[in-house]
Amino acid sequence: MPESNTKPEYFVGVDLGGTKIAAGVFDAKRVLLGSAKFSTKPQRGADAVIERIARCVNDAVDECDISFKNVRGIGIGAPGVIDEESGRVLFAPNLDWKDVPLKKALEKQLDVPVAVENDCNLAALGVFAHELRGKPRHLLGIFLGTGIGGGIIIDGQVYGGSGRGAGEIGHMVLQTDGPKCACGSNGCFESLASRTAIFKRIFAAVKDGQKTVLTDMLGDDLKDLRSGDLRRAIRRNDKLVESIVQEAAEHTGRAVASLMNVLNPDVVALGGGIIEALESEVMPTIIKVAREHVMPGLFKGCEIIASGLGDHAGLIGGAVLARRMAK
Amino acid sequence: MPESNTKPEYFVGVDLGGTKIAAGVFDAKRVLLGSAKFSTKPQRGADAVIERIARCVNDAVDECDISFKNVRGIGIGAPGVIDEESGRVLFAPNLDWKDVPLKKALEKQLDVPVAVENDCNLAALGVFAHELRGKPRHLLGIFLGTGIGGGIIIDGQVYGGSGRGAGEIGHMVLQTDGPKCACGSNGCFESLASRTAIFKRIFAAVKDGQKTVLTDMLGDDLKDLRSGDLRRAIRRNDKLVESIVQEAAEHTGRAVASLMNVLNPDVVALGGGIIEALESEVMPTIIKVAREHVMPGLFKGCEIIASGLGDHAGLIGGAVLARRMAK
Repeated sequence: MPESNTKPEYFVGVDLGGTKIAAGVFDAKRVLLGSAKFSTKPQRGADAVIERIARCVNDAVDECDISFKNVRGIGIGAPGVIDEESGRVLFAPNLDWKDVPLKKALEKQLDVPVAVENDCNLAALGVFAHELRGKPRHLLGIFLGTGIGGGIIIDGQVYGGSGRGAGEIGHMVLQTDGPKCACGSNGCFESLASRTAIFKRIFAAVKDGQKTVLTDMLGDDLKDLRSGDLRRAIRRNDKLVESIVQEAAEHTGRAVASLMNVLNPDVVALGGGIIEALESEVMPTIIKVAREHVMPGLFKGCEIIASGLGDHAGLIGGAVLARRMAK
Repeated sequence: MPESNTKPEYFVGVDLGGTKIAAGVFDAKRVLLGSAKFSTKPQRGADAVIERIARCVNDAVDECDISFKNVRGIGIGAPGVIDEESGRVLFAPNLDWKDVPLKKALEKQLDVPVAVENDCNLAALGVFAHELRGKPRHLLGIFLGTGIGGGIIIDGQVYGGSGRGAGEIGHMVLQTDGPKCACGSNGCFESLASRTAIFKRIFAAVKDGQKTVLTDMLGDDLKDLRSGDLRRAIRRNDKLVESIVQEAAEHTGRAVASLMNVLNPDVVALGGGIIEALESEVMPTIIKVAREHVMPGLFKGCEIIASGLGDHAGLIGGAVLARRMAK
């Protein structure tokens, strides 16, 4: 039936985070047609958040001048452990969710098929399927932001592990006697190289009387410090920020090497807020240190790249997942 | 044809190491019928080593009073990077081999199908298929001996990664400023918790004047120190050996937790000489520290066990591989 073949098809990707909800509407060629953003407000409870997701999706679709009935599916990334078959969010500490039937509740509200995945897995799927056009067999996505998460693609499929908890690369121990991590351990990758870790070290240095242009830019309390400010400070030749950011990049390089030694992927793709803001500052260090620490032979044939998708990786991954489900 | 069904079938597993070659002959139920051991003598070159492997296999088969013509296949584990399709050993530093056509050369000598795998992958396959009867979906094998290696089973299959180099878990960085590792990095898991690392710390402590019963047992130069001596010393209440071994076990626990966070396997199986000699001394510490460092939720549903196969894991894995190939 040629009619149904030419009927337009749209897919919505949703990135559900602890502070914001983003939705993007894509056509079948994964061109972004429109998007919307809401704050999450997890303190209002799961039902209220799910209703906000539905409104965010509706607003994004409305943005595009398309008919909602041509939306074939929605793919959502949530920050936690997901049972992707039932679409339940088993555990999401940032949302304070335990066993929330996200897929079922959202399908009831929107009357469209919904697929749910872990947010980092979905971002890795976006990088794999869209940016790298499904070419590498094995991909490791590393997302550096407030925290550090990973998504593993093996043989072109998201690898979830036994209990859908694989990819918690932020909690590899890199420095046994390192700083305390939110997970309870010491010296996790996340406690050494996340935005939170970098900010903590800057706050401590400023308290300690060390000089940085950041205080000229933002005041002594460094209120509203963001990743972009780090880039601006480094470009103004700020030695303190430069050395703290470079140290985090070195830790990241060692983590990349460790993961290359374990997983031997075709591609390691780095993304997230830190990479978006500081790509040219940190990538050369990350690649250099990774090369120094990887086993002889394992560097060959593996590419380390900065993803160009930025914050959109998760949204695109959602659209990819939605389309895979609709097929 | 009932006749061919009742014809006996045998499979040979071979463990090729830098110092010794071991071969074991198994029946279809994986009962070990006979074995043989040779020194490797890698300095004589690849052709000589391959000829020694062939003689070792012949001797093992001769041991069992069976006919060589009922041997259906040989599975070999080699210490290095293997191209398992062609059966070439691409890179094996302990043997000083580069691109050796092991499969082809051995098939020519023995006229039996040969399959080649990385030694740790093969040991993991032995634990998976024989000891755990193929039950876990995802298994991580960790082998603690002179060095530290890993084998990863995903969805019941050996996971080799992009360049067949996956599972080099001994070279995860656990302590950024830790001891120098043979690979060139600092603070690798292997540099902190292998037999070599434990021995080095004992030698240094003795040189430093610290007391241990090991010098009573073996003389001041600790010549011929073996893993079993560590167990004997600990049972004689030797505080120095106890603390060095426990420290290595703690590093192992952190490595296990890191790998559980990344891979979320169903089972982590520990094996190798250290575990064989010191299981009851180190396993409680490894499990306790792993539990403390793994992400909340990821410990549930994952078992950490000591493999009971000991040195036989690789041989049994070889038999499993040989049988899979013959089918």
